[in-house]
Amino acid sequence: MKVRFDRIARVQAAMREHGLIAIVVINHDDYRYLFGTDRSQPRALIPFQGPPELIAFTGEEPELRAALAQGEVRVFGSVGGQIHDIVGRVREIAESDPFGAVAAGARPKVGMQMWFHTPAFLVDLFRQVNPEVELVSSDPVMDPLRSIKDADELAAMTEAQRIAGEGMDRARALLRPGVSAHEVATEALYAMWRAGAEGTSTPIYVNFGVETCMLHGRISPAPLERGQLALVDLTPQVDGYCANLSRTFVLGQPDARQAELLAAYREIVAAVRAEMRPGVTMAQLDERAKAAAARHGLAEYQVYGIGHGIGLRFEEPPAPTIIPPHKALPLATGMTVTIGHPVLAIPGFGGARFEDVYRLTAGGPEPLFEYPIDPVVLA
Amino acid sequence: MKVRFDRIARVQAAMREHGLIAIVVINHDDYRYLFGTDRSQPRALIPFQGPPELIAFTGEEPELRAALAQGEVRVFGSVGGQIHDIVGRVREIAESDPFGAVAAGARPKVGMQMWFHTPAFLVDLFRQVNPEVELVSSDPVMDPLRSIKDADELAAMTEAQRIAGEGMDRARALLRPGVSAHEVATEALYAMWRAGAEGTSTPIYVNFGVETCMLHGRISPAPLERGQLALVDLTPQVDGYCANLSRTFVLGQPDARQAELLAAYREIVAAVRAEMRPGVTMAQLDERAKAAAARHGLAEYQVYGIGHGIGLRFEEPPAPTIIPPHKALPLATGMTVTIGHPVLAIPGFGGARFEDVYRLTAGGPEPLFEYPIDPVVLA
Repeated sequence: MKVRFDRIARVQAAMREHGLIAIVVINHDDYRYLFGTDRSQPRALIPFQGPPELIAFTGEEPELRAALAQGEVRVFGSVGGQIHDIVGRVREIAESDPFGAVAAGARPKVGMQMWFHTPAFLVDLFRQVNPEVELVSSDPVMDPLRSIKDADELAAMTEAQRIAGEGMDRARALLRPGVSAHEVATEALYAMWRAGAEGTSTPIYVNFGVETCMLHGRISPAPLERGQLALVDLTPQVDGYCANLSRTFVLGQPDARQAELLAAYREIVAAVRAEMRPGVTMAQLDERAKAAAARHGLAEYQVYGIGHGIGLRFEEPPAPTIIPPHKALPLATGMTVTIGHPVLAIPGFGGARFEDVYRLTAGGPEPLFEYPIDPVVLA
Repeated sequence: MKVRFDRIARVQAAMREHGLIAIVVINHDDYRYLFGTDRSQPRALIPFQGPPELIAFTGEEPELRAALAQGEVRVFGSVGGQIHDIVGRVREIAESDPFGAVAAGARPKVGMQMWFHTPAFLVDLFRQVNPEVELVSSDPVMDPLRSIKDADELAAMTEAQRIAGEGMDRARALLRPGVSAHEVATEALYAMWRAGAEGTSTPIYVNFGVETCMLHGRISPAPLERGQLALVDLTPQVDGYCANLSRTFVLGQPDARQAELLAAYREIVAAVRAEMRPGVTMAQLDERAKAAAARHGLAEYQVYGIGHGIGLRFEEPPAPTIIPPHKALPLATGMTVTIGHPVLAIPGFGGARFEDVYRLTAGGPEPLFEYPIDPVVLA
């Protein structure tokens, strides 16, 4: 456990700019970002100034205190007392009214991450027990900091992407008539764990035949047949950082329509990569993707959202399929994004995608790990 | 995909009792329960009467329509149109005002699951775009139905628990000086997938030494040493149904304090099992657990919440550590619950737990799968 006081200081500076008196952390990704480790139940409070405060189970206290070293972090007592502890601290900070909200007739603002892993019932509970503050999204504070990756983060993400490549090698080697998607997933997962993965940020998806049309897939129930498409999507994690590698294969020589589909997606990726540079938006990249699909007569099947940010969250800003205004968010140097997110699916026939992770530099996109696109499997 | 029209009919009957005009399903577990399958983005609307409606991506439509057979399910078009589709349908049903809410000067109620996987930002968005209805928790409708397991559900859960046993066998066999927690987790996970697991409902936890104190654990960074405690927690899934098997080991002959800790937890489990019968509450079971810990001088370390419901969700009602009023929820025949949830942790020393899943019968608890408690590993 290595508390990132440098990041906490930057977060607190942004909190003061945005008038947040505190951020309540209940998500693994923010906890990792600020404390350099994870716990089953991450709980912390970052005040607008001063040391961060961890809310921990009594049994964990000695271990956390030892790891924290500087002793600059308060550790609270009981599980049952978590709500009480947080309410008490929020009230204390709110009463000091550092940004004059109360004086202006408003409520002091407390931030919380507003993403898939922030449960509505906990937010409703927080609002109910802390009526004197306004709960707002902490995303405007956290997103700009988190979306630009430092060298440590890039190293972890590169390693995760390399591990995804090992899983994909294993998956590809298993494709033969009669193999089950479950076996492919089992072996790919094992290969990734042995290579150092600590988990995956989404389930593994292995889809065969017409099921390659499924938006983000699942594990197909029927075994692979000769002539079918196979789509594998792998998302291993290293130190909490996410990878994303998708490849589409065809078992045997592709027929004309499969070949067109695969060629179209390669061209989509190439066209989008050629356009990626600081300042470009996902909407502009989507136009390029659509134009490439159109050149293959497949424009009607190209759905928007060609990529998304990635880091300690599987989807981070820009995440245009989740937060529509992110379509207009300009890419910046240091961001890490995937290209190849949506499946190009011909309903009733099959779909294809090739997804990789890139870091954006002033000179354009650099793949974190170069993995071949080699879809024809002759087994 | 096998739509469970029987369950949908029971849900709709309960909706009419509770005055819900619709339930919006965005969670995997409810989707599995009602549609007998899962998708990466489960989206459905259950009106208070009539056929359920799936919201699906265009590319998925033929596959879903084919699987649905009866054609009693509407399939909507685009991803981008999901919000629009749901808003339109909610408005249409709300305007019919079947339960007279509008006539009474109130808003018609729409239900949504309120648990860990219902994101606050989607709930806030729903409220914003559907101001004419009141969004409420669907838990009072769904929980009573889902907490009583039928034969199919018990079969899947028993299989999941058996698979957890295979993972635990593999984990135990690997415990030796110098083994890493990551290796133990890797091999246990692989054993469970090979045995048929489709995933795990929580990360795998493998903790060594003082880290056995961590509330729900993690993967310890340092290798196992002779004389240390090791705690393994496995949660494989089959058809979406969850298992939960935890065992604590000691590498070598336990010292007096370790022996006391392990004996105390065995006695806690035995005391709680002896008390389990229809009508008993988790609070009463916790009293038994505390008394057993007290007989070993460890009462101060025993935290409440000795068990929880389990099924398509890893934690279901009764879930006293999440929803405090569940402490008073009486157990009923047909419920499936874990016993052994909290770690009995001596801060700075180590912790122990033995967790299994039981179904409640009129005659008492029956373990879904009997797995030995055999903590001393002489390797």
